[in-house]
Amino acid sequence: MIIDILTLFPDMFVSPLTESILKRAQEQELVNIRTVNIRDYAPGKHHQVDDYPYGGGAGMVMKADVIGAAVQDVKTPESWVILMSPQGKPLQQERAFELAQFQHLVIICGHYEGFDARIMDEVDEEISIGDFILTGGELPAMVLIDAVVRLLPGVLDEQSPLEESFGNRLLEYPQYTRPVEYQDKRVPDILLSGHHEKIRLWRKKQSLLTTLLKRPDLLLNREYDQEERILLEEIIFKGDLT
Amino acid sequence: MIIDILTLFPDMFVSPLTESILKRAQEQELVNIRTVNIRDYAPGKHHQVDDYPYGGGAGMVMKADVIGAAVQDVKTPESWVILMSPQGKPLQQERAFELAQFQHLVIICGHYEGFDARIMDEVDEEISIGDFILTGGELPAMVLIDAVVRLLPGVLDEQSPLEESFGNRLLEYPQYTRPVEYQDKRVPDILLSGHHEKIRLWRKKQSLLTTLLKRPDLLLNREYDQEERILLEEIIFKGDLT
Repeated sequence: MIIDILTLFPDMFVSPLTESILKRAQEQELVNIRTVNIRDYAPGKHHQVDDYPYGGGAGMVMKADVIGAAVQDVKTPESWVILMSPQGKPLQQERAFELAQFQHLVIICGHYEGFDARIMDEVDEEISIGDFILTGGELPAMVLIDAVVRLLPGVLDEQSPLEESFGNRLLEYPQYTRPVEYQDKRVPDILLSGHHEKIRLWRKKQSLLTTLLKRPDLLLNREYDQEERILLEEIIFKGDLT
Repeated sequence: MIIDILTLFPDMFVSPLTESILKRAQEQELVNIRTVNIRDYAPGKHHQVDDYPYGGGAGMVMKADVIGAAVQDVKTPESWVILMSPQGKPLQQERAFELAQFQHLVIICGHYEGFDARIMDEVDEEISIGDFILTGGELPAMVLIDAVVRLLPGVLDEQSPLEESFGNRLLEYPQYTRPVEYQDKRVPDILLSGHHEKIRLWRKKQSLLTTLLKRPDLLLNREYDQEERILLEEIIFKGDLT
């Protein structure tokens, strides 16, 4: 996969892209992530990327012709052009799986008050990462890239990404590691028991219980297997949380 | 405000914290953002920060005693300790406003498969940035910091943060800037008219229309003033979108 990030602040990406899993994925050539400075496509000696909004108002608006020129330069027939924007559909794990199938993602990061609405002709999809306001699209772009790249074949070696939170639309069960006792709190006995099947069931139940307590909305409209159904009935109708 | 970020990857924060608004806010001493390497609190010559999960399974679990020592070291009676976690409540703009009132935020970034559940005793609040899986809590921490710091007094000089998307629970109206014509698309005439009151009403209506089309869920359970009510009725019942 190739990812082109169109931004006015390419330097913001330096350290997040050169650490941890994103660094390894690039070193192993599983993904090629490039930053493109939108300012390089602004004509004139001042390289003006924004201008006052028609109709007045505070703040500056990024120019459609400048962003358009940058997109046209990197776009190929295989490209999927994403605009990071609070108006986009909120990112969900399912969409990250789908985006991991593309050959070339072009990600536009907005900044300032906004952008000229006419750039939407260049955009295949608007994506938001949530209902909060940020200073620009750079951090959302990093979040999207991290979510997608870790799903590319070969990037993670351990378990299947499907086993994790949201992959099966449940939160994870609680985890424990050494020491057995920490500040008067012991690891639950069952995890020390060595009974693999009991541990598996306990974890599944804790996963359901955690989701019920913290994010009950995730329990709606999901598919349950027979075992999950029995465990959830034990929790809700019998109050059996162990 | 002081923000302490507890992380295994402090270097990830270097470039996002030294660009744009976060850089300026620190230079102006409106916020002091520090990274604390959790590994410095791991005893022994190997500085072991994670260990195998009790009960088996793939991946490593961050140790409660190590994270606990790091939190204890930076915590004061004024601190509010946040864990970035997919199990947290999804961040909303309202919560960013509230968090901007605190004197000292301590933000713990998880990594690996998870963390020992017993660290929850040290945590005041779990925050998620959405229902997707990332390689660690570092990018979510940056997102939270960006959302909060831009709300601190003096950081933004232009308009009030309340006027923006989500501040009033509506998406923004479309913006336009020069050139008037771009790829056969003209700026809407009304924005060139100079009629300030008509422009104000057009923008308010476009804001309602955009929200209706892209995020209808935001229209539920919000307060409407009389003008918004009339404009929304024109859109829905009369099909008048101009």
